[in-house]
Amino acid sequence: MQNPGLLKELIQSLTCLPGVGAKSAQRMAFYLLQRNREGGRHLASILERAMAQIHHCRDCRTLTEHEVCEVCSDPLRDDGVLCVVETAADAWLLDQATRFRGKYFVLHGRLSPLDGIGPDQLGIAQLERRLAAGQVKEIILATNATLEGQATAHFIAEIASRHAVLSTRIAHGVPMGGELEFIDSSTLAHAFNGRQAF
Amino acid sequence: MQNPGLLKELIQSLTCLPGVGAKSAQRMAFYLLQRNREGGRHLASILERAMAQIHHCRDCRTLTEHEVCEVCSDPLRDDGVLCVVETAADAWLLDQATRFRGKYFVLHGRLSPLDGIGPDQLGIAQLERRLAAGQVKEIILATNATLEGQATAHFIAEIASRHAVLSTRIAHGVPMGGELEFIDSSTLAHAFNGRQAF
Repeated sequence: MQNPGLLKELIQSLTCLPGVGAKSAQRMAFYLLQRNREGGRHLASILERAMAQIHHCRDCRTLTEHEVCEVCSDPLRDDGVLCVVETAADAWLLDQATRFRGKYFVLHGRLSPLDGIGPDQLGIAQLERRLAAGQVKEIILATNATLEGQATAHFIAEIASRHAVLSTRIAHGVPMGGELEFIDSSTLAHAFNGRQAF
Repeated sequence: MQNPGLLKELIQSLTCLPGVGAKSAQRMAFYLLQRNREGGRHLASILERAMAQIHHCRDCRTLTEHEVCEVCSDPLRDDGVLCVVETAADAWLLDQATRFRGKYFVLHGRLSPLDGIGPDQLGIAQLERRLAAGQVKEIILATNATLEGQATAHFIAEIASRHAVLSTRIAHGVPMGGELEFIDSSTLAHAFNGRQAF
């Protein structure tokens, strides 16, 4: 099959998916063509619509095909609590894992001056306008537990304090199910110092 | 994100790919939307064309968007040697791994009476017409080394012998790089009995 045209193009273009190499792409292409054309057709159409229509929510910057996302437009959600995350995926994961009924704000990144990512890229001005409006009583800082995520959390906490909004940070410590033996010392120290009444 | 619409649909439809569960599908969807929309758009368009246009080659039954595939229509390929495989993926893999310059015939399955797969489903009549035409001198049986693959190979070998066509079977034995310690006894026995002059 020296010049297999469309089939080869299909295999090639499937490798644009993260974690999919040449072998998996081959398996996927043959699977779709031989056993699940309906699924393949459906995926093509959804993919095309999603790439064209999904953009950032006007209010919280998460991914949505509407002007304002379902969370922001949900009247049952509490406008008083705002959870700040680095990515839309983080907001999605938190919303699935918790019973949080407040709203989100997606930074799409974290402060990283060396990469040229400053407050402007993270929509900090928009966040500050929201805090200034007075509805938000608590801001939950759910950026990553990395150096840059911590710096971003501190930066936003300062802004919040200027607007008299309470800042909280998600807890860091030993993961559930984790055995102390396998936890790194920095996490152990953090968990130890952050102990709570039992 | 109670009713995330299109994003959720995208994640859902990505799980139609083999080996892709809910977690990987999430990762793929966010990756495409945030970092590679161009790749996503390209994949959607190729996928749509592939599902609509790729069908079976008239001569060898492999997957192609043309009436006759590139291998069958290649004048430099030898019509005298025909390699019979169970799937289009097998033909693809063999063609990439070997320097075979003959042609293929794809059964799209193997004899399996319990599943209702008989000669009719495998295009055996078409294969026999091809052997009867007289051009084929050797038929290489490259069906799988399973019970059903062996039975299918025997069945086709009998037809070939009726048309005075030489049947050969790909070699079975210890895989290259394999250590005897880890090879099952049936393969070992086969390899031992099938020893060749060194």
